[in-house]
This record gives sequence, structure tokens and C-alpha cells, in this order.
Amino acid sequence: MSETYPSALLEKAVSEFSKLPGIGRKSALRLVLNMLRRDVSDVDEFCNSIMTLKHEVKYCKVCHNISDTDVCPICSDRRRDASTICVVENIQDVMAVEKTQQFNGLYHVLGGIISPMDGIGPGDIEVDSLVDRISTGDVREVILALSSTMEGDTTNFYISRKLMQYDVKLSVIARGISVGDELEYTDEVTLGRSILNRTPFKQ
Amino acid sequence: MSETYPSALLEKAVSEFSKLPGIGRKSALRLVLNMLRRDVSDVDEFCNSIMTLKHEVKYCKVCHNISDTDVCPICSDRRRDASTICVVENIQDVMAVEKTQQFNGLYHVLGGIISPMDGIGPGDIEVDSLVDRISTGDVREVILALSSTMEGDTTNFYISRKLMQYDVKLSVIARGISVGDELEYTDEVTLGRSILNRTPFKQ
Repeated sequence: MSETYPSALLEKAVSEFSKLPGIGRKSALRLVLNMLRRDVSDVDEFCNSIMTLKHEVKYCKVCHNISDTDVCPICSDRRRDASTICVVENIQDVMAVEKTQQFNGLYHVLGGIISPMDGIGPGDIEVDSLVDRISTGDVREVILALSSTMEGDTTNFYISRKLMQYDVKLSVIARGISVGDELEYTDEVTLGRSILNRTPFKQ
Repeated sequence: MSETYPSALLEKAVSEFSKLPGIGRKSALRLVLNMLRRDVSDVDEFCNSIMTLKHEVKYCKVCHNISDTDVCPICSDRRRDASTICVVENIQDVMAVEKTQQFNGLYHVLGGIISPMDGIGPGDIEVDSLVDRISTGDVREVILALSSTMEGDTTNFYISRKLMQYDVKLSVIARGISVGDELEYTDEVTLGRSILNRTPFKQ
């Protein structure tokens, strides 16, 4: 059922907000009315932050992560191990891995995964530039850290074929039961894999 | 645990988005990255719609609803019954009542309800202008359509005292079980009220 907005300006703003992912028209209206209640300077700052980001955003020339500089802080950090590259789908995944504090190498952000259903082919993601990085011979290990989905598996397979000719170790992040998971509630595929890929018990 | 954003511009935009009600930092990041993926013209339009609304928004001089004109379309509609005023808390409530297509009178938007806990007193809501509208003598009925909460009840009581001296009928929207509700899941206060306020059965 269509809503009747008391103002065309309001309706326009609501329809712009509702283009955002996961924001319906009802939430959009709530957000817009919140904006209306705030100071003009606040709203200015909100809009400026988006426009500035949009116009001045850079992507690291090496790993394609978002960066304020041509080469991102991670890629230019000499203390990090440049011989190990962790391949991830997107920027959020870099942040997720960084948060674990378990990885000290560099990243490679694909900017998507191969998904024919969504019209994303191998040419749409940053695989060629990954191959370029490997072809220098300085990289010893590539860790594939993609989602454990059909698309992730397809992309892993595609990358592995592309890197076959190089002398580089390929690994995939472990799949198994989550820490804290109860066995009886774990799905059988995950449980099956976690048995196949069992690791030596450490005391 | 604090996140490390790869870019200060990104962090600024995320922190602006997460000021919106109901948007956490994780959702904010998702929204900002969505913005980044869109065309510059799209992002321009998004920002323009908010800024235009913020700078050009008007409130109806009569009912205080948002309006593109000095007097809103509802207040200036001669076909509507100007002798009945429905008092609501906010703009969303006008839209909600309009959607029912059961009301053909005018509105009065209070812009809030009395809530001492939130520091909102009688002086912060549009009661005086309601009294002005009633004092002309043209209004026969005021329908109080506020939320069925302590704050709504307090506001209803305050308005009723303010209007006591005028010859105007005061009514409150019915409270009872929702259409479609099952009796056994209705809370006892609502069910109790719906029995006290029972209406003649119509076939």
C-alpha cells in the first residue's frame, strides 16, 4: 500500500534513504525525520563525510584495500611479512582478519567473488593483479580466505589454476566447527569436514 | 572492541552513519561501502535530497505537520471537516491515521508527548497553538490519538485540563484487542479495558 507523504521534499529524501541496503521505507522515514531534528551543521557534516569519501577515496595500488594513500598502511609496513598474502573478498574481510591479530602478512582484496548467478565473472575481480604479485617470486604462500560457499569454492579453484605455474604454497583457511559450538547443533557437512581435517591434539 | 579502518575518510563516514538511530557501526560500514559502489551522481542526489529537505522544509502554520507550503494540503482542503481535530504526537502518526481512510477531519501535530524522564515538558509541545485553534469556537470535537502509554495518558490529561473551559467534545481513540489478535495472547490490561469499554454488537 502506498504511503502519502505530506511533503514532496520529504518523500524524495525517504526514497533516497530507502535505496540503501536493508532500509525499508518505514526505516527510511525514521532516519529522515531524525535528520530533520538535528542541527543544520550536523546534517552538513553527514553529507560532507560521504561526498569527501566518494570523491577522495583511493584504493591501494598493491592490495586494492581502501586507503587514504596510494599504498595502504598495511602494504607499506616493513614489519609485516611480505612473503605471505591473504586473499579476501572485500574490505570488511580485511578488517575481520586484522581483528583476530593472528596474521602478519599482506592482503589481496579481490573486490568480489566469482558468481555467475550475479553476473560476476573472473574478469570482474582482481585476479590478474594477484598473479602479477606472485610472478615476482617474492611470495611464498597464498592463503585463500574466502567464504565457505559455492562461489568461494569456485573462486578458490579459479585462483589455484591461475597460480599453478608458480612456485607458491596455496592454503585455505580451516573449516570446522566454530569455537563455542555444540556438536549436536553443527550441520553435518561442517562436522564431516572437521573430522576429515582433524589436527593433532595439543595439550 | 575497536575496529581499525583502513582509511580515515571511511572511518569518518562510518561514524556519521552510525549516529543514525538503530544503525550500529557494522551496518554503517555496510551502508557506506554501498555508497562507495554507487555512481557519484547517485551519491550527489542522495546528499542533495537531505540538504534540500533540511533547508527548505516548512511546517504547516495550522497543524504543524511537515509541508511544502505554509498551510498543508490537509488543512487547506475545503472538503475536509474543519470542526474535528485529531491530536497526534508526530508526522508518522498523521500518515498512519490517513492510511486508515477513516478520518476526514484536520490534524494537530504536537511534535512530542510530555515525558519528564526525557526532559519534555508541556511547554515543549504544541499545546498552546491547539488551545488557540479551539478558542475560535469553530471546533466541535477533539480526538486524542496518542500512544497508549504513561506519557500519552499524561499528555491527554494535560490537554483535557487546558481545554476544559471550552465547549468542545473530547474523545480518545478506542483501546482494545487488535483486529486479528487471539484472546489468549492479549495482555490482561488491554483485555480488561476491552471488556470495560465493550460496544454494542452490530450484525
